[in-house]
Amino acid sequence: MKFRITPIDGGICAVEGIYAGAVKAGFKKDDYDVGFIRSDEPLDIAYLFTTNKFQAAPIKYVKRKEIKKSNFILANSKNANAMTGEEGIKDIEEILEYLSSRTTLTNPVMSSTGVIGVRLDKEKIKAAIDKFDLNERNSNKFAKAIMTTDSFEKEIAFEVEGEFGKFRIGGVAKGAGMINPAMATMLCFITTDADIPKEEMSEILKDNNEVTFNAISVDGDTSTNDSVFLMTIRKGAYEKEAFKEALKQVMIKLALDIVKDGEGATKAVAFVVTGAKNKKEAKIAAKALTNSLLVKTALFGEDPNWGRIASTIGASGVECDENKLKIAFENIVVYDKGKIIFDEETEKKAHEVMKKREFKIYVDIGMGEGAFTAYGCDLSYDYVKINAEYRT
Amino acid sequence: MKFRITPIDGGICAVEGIYAGAVKAGFKKDDYDVGFIRSDEPLDIAYLFTTNKFQAAPIKYVKRKEIKKSNFILANSKNANAMTGEEGIKDIEEILEYLSSRTTLTNPVMSSTGVIGVRLDKEKIKAAIDKFDLNERNSNKFAKAIMTTDSFEKEIAFEVEGEFGKFRIGGVAKGAGMINPAMATMLCFITTDADIPKEEMSEILKDNNEVTFNAISVDGDTSTNDSVFLMTIRKGAYEKEAFKEALKQVMIKLALDIVKDGEGATKAVAFVVTGAKNKKEAKIAAKALTNSLLVKTALFGEDPNWGRIASTIGASGVECDENKLKIAFENIVVYDKGKIIFDEETEKKAHEVMKKREFKIYVDIGMGEGAFTAYGCDLSYDYVKINAEYRT
Repeated sequence: MKFRITPIDGGICAVEGIYAGAVKAGFKKDDYDVGFIRSDEPLDIAYLFTTNKFQAAPIKYVKRKEIKKSNFILANSKNANAMTGEEGIKDIEEILEYLSSRTTLTNPVMSSTGVIGVRLDKEKIKAAIDKFDLNERNSNKFAKAIMTTDSFEKEIAFEVEGEFGKFRIGGVAKGAGMINPAMATMLCFITTDADIPKEEMSEILKDNNEVTFNAISVDGDTSTNDSVFLMTIRKGAYEKEAFKEALKQVMIKLALDIVKDGEGATKAVAFVVTGAKNKKEAKIAAKALTNSLLVKTALFGEDPNWGRIASTIGASGVECDENKLKIAFENIVVYDKGKIIFDEETEKKAHEVMKKREFKIYVDIGMGEGAFTAYGCDLSYDYVKINAEYRT
Repeated sequence: MKFRITPIDGGICAVEGIYAGAVKAGFKKDDYDVGFIRSDEPLDIAYLFTTNKFQAAPIKYVKRKEIKKSNFILANSKNANAMTGEEGIKDIEEILEYLSSRTTLTNPVMSSTGVIGVRLDKEKIKAAIDKFDLNERNSNKFAKAIMTTDSFEKEIAFEVEGEFGKFRIGGVAKGAGMINPAMATMLCFITTDADIPKEEMSEILKDNNEVTFNAISVDGDTSTNDSVFLMTIRKGAYEKEAFKEALKQVMIKLALDIVKDGEGATKAVAFVVTGAKNKKEAKIAAKALTNSLLVKTALFGEDPNWGRIASTIGASGVECDENKLKIAFENIVVYDKGKIIFDEETEKKAHEVMKKREFKIYVDIGMGEGAFTAYGCDLSYDYVKINAEYRT
């Protein structure tokens, strides 16, 4: 490594010149629910948006305005402003117009999460805007404001240092207390002072997204609001490799936080698929595993029921062969190319692995060089017990 | 209708000449777990098997032997005999060889369901065979023997009468207590005395399967063992249209029983999708709805959260447009081509619909003529409450 990545405090506000805060607007019972991220000068901003065909109004707004530079992000939880048509967009315009009375705006952006199909309560949001302390630099409050069913705030920041100099990068995200994170809204806001060329922002964001947030989303069933924002204030240094790695670490940390915060999840599991025909098939297989209710319930039951893993691979549609497949819980191989290695001793060891809070399941398909790692959680909760205990 | 279809008792044994029974082999604590269906003469038999690439040994055995006529089906629960390689097939051969000491066999078939990746306990199954009363005609016992997490037996029989004469048809099935039935093994055995031409058996079975068992399976994540068998003793009459309709009614009854028997399911819901670009897209959209955890939890919460339905359609990948979509709970329209019709009164009415044990949700995509109805159940259980109550 020609550079060093050091965790620091401060989340998105670890980057100098970034302000963030939130207020209690009354959408939640007694918690932050409307927040902002801003800077004095407009910043270059890159986005990734949901592939859902019914994109929410805030996303349509940004796309329609073709916003490339902005100095203000306004965010709210409890209402997604989705399926609200042109009126939903007009609501955003009215709110941002009101916001302009409080501060100088350059292409402000809005980001929402919550219930679909309900108009925004503009008056409550305007009242929230009145209460903003625009000089606040509190990443944590903002992280709280975007939470819906999340049980903890998701924040991270790094300082990156190398021969090229120094830069900082910070991120906040909200996940979904859902079993399959991609099914409820995922929002992520990343700030940096890296002097990243404008044309590289989207490219690097997209590349990293494939192996981070897209590795925890399972079946493409994405919400109307999923968004990842990257903005840079460009006061620091830049080196592509270092930036890409640091951004990846920010994104993987937040993605894994989302997995760990799955409602009732007791385990975070990495499904390491290798030997697929190609990368695409590795991804299909790995995601199928994170999405299989039978696999998830076996995780919860700490039951090394490898047959469910095999069945999921077989059903995923990828090229495979019973006599080439290999399955291991960490280093405990339970099925090896047609041979069942599942005596009492092996089962016990595999069960020990599964008792851990975090572990890896390795699946080698034996058909090629394709590899992908997907991250999932178990399905706990009583109802699941029925499946978890199926073998006993 | 040129024919009349009348429900009768007897399940698969409503057809004269079909024997069925079961014994308690000890795989379950105190219930039937090994059973048989047989006839004196070999019968023409048609099958549909899982598309899982790791087909279980019983399926491989039938395919390898290219069995077209058989007089005996041996079935067991608690062990799927899947991922057991050549040894799994040899186990079947040994068991069927043993069975031949008890009765005259013509291409006997075995069918299994249960845990994957464990060799069959041949001695226990042989002991069960010793206990068979081969003159028994008890469809219900057989239906019990194939149950795994099912909570009730799934049986039906009809007598069909028309100008062409009479025939009978009966079926038993086992589903899965799983949320997505297709993920755990689904077995179905159908007997008839209809004089159906051999070449029409597979065709009619396949056509009906598309709108019955395939309409309750959601994402192609099929088990290693899924099988549907149709066999005819050809002592009755036959008329293609009548037979196809009667077979469909057998299959839809058993398919819906599987939906209703979803673990903890409190509701069986038909998602009637119309106006899709084509039939394929209608099926994708309808199945996406039955498979969406957000939709399923809303069903359980009796929450007419139509936004989740819209979001699922948008995420399913089918062609759609906010301004063409229409959503209704039975006759209560909540979203109509860009217009949200969701005042307090409408919400209350939609909520009333959802209180029912069975109801329909209509989604018109407004893009074409494609239509498909898929059947699903809710996700009850405490853990789901978290999502079901999200809006409140």
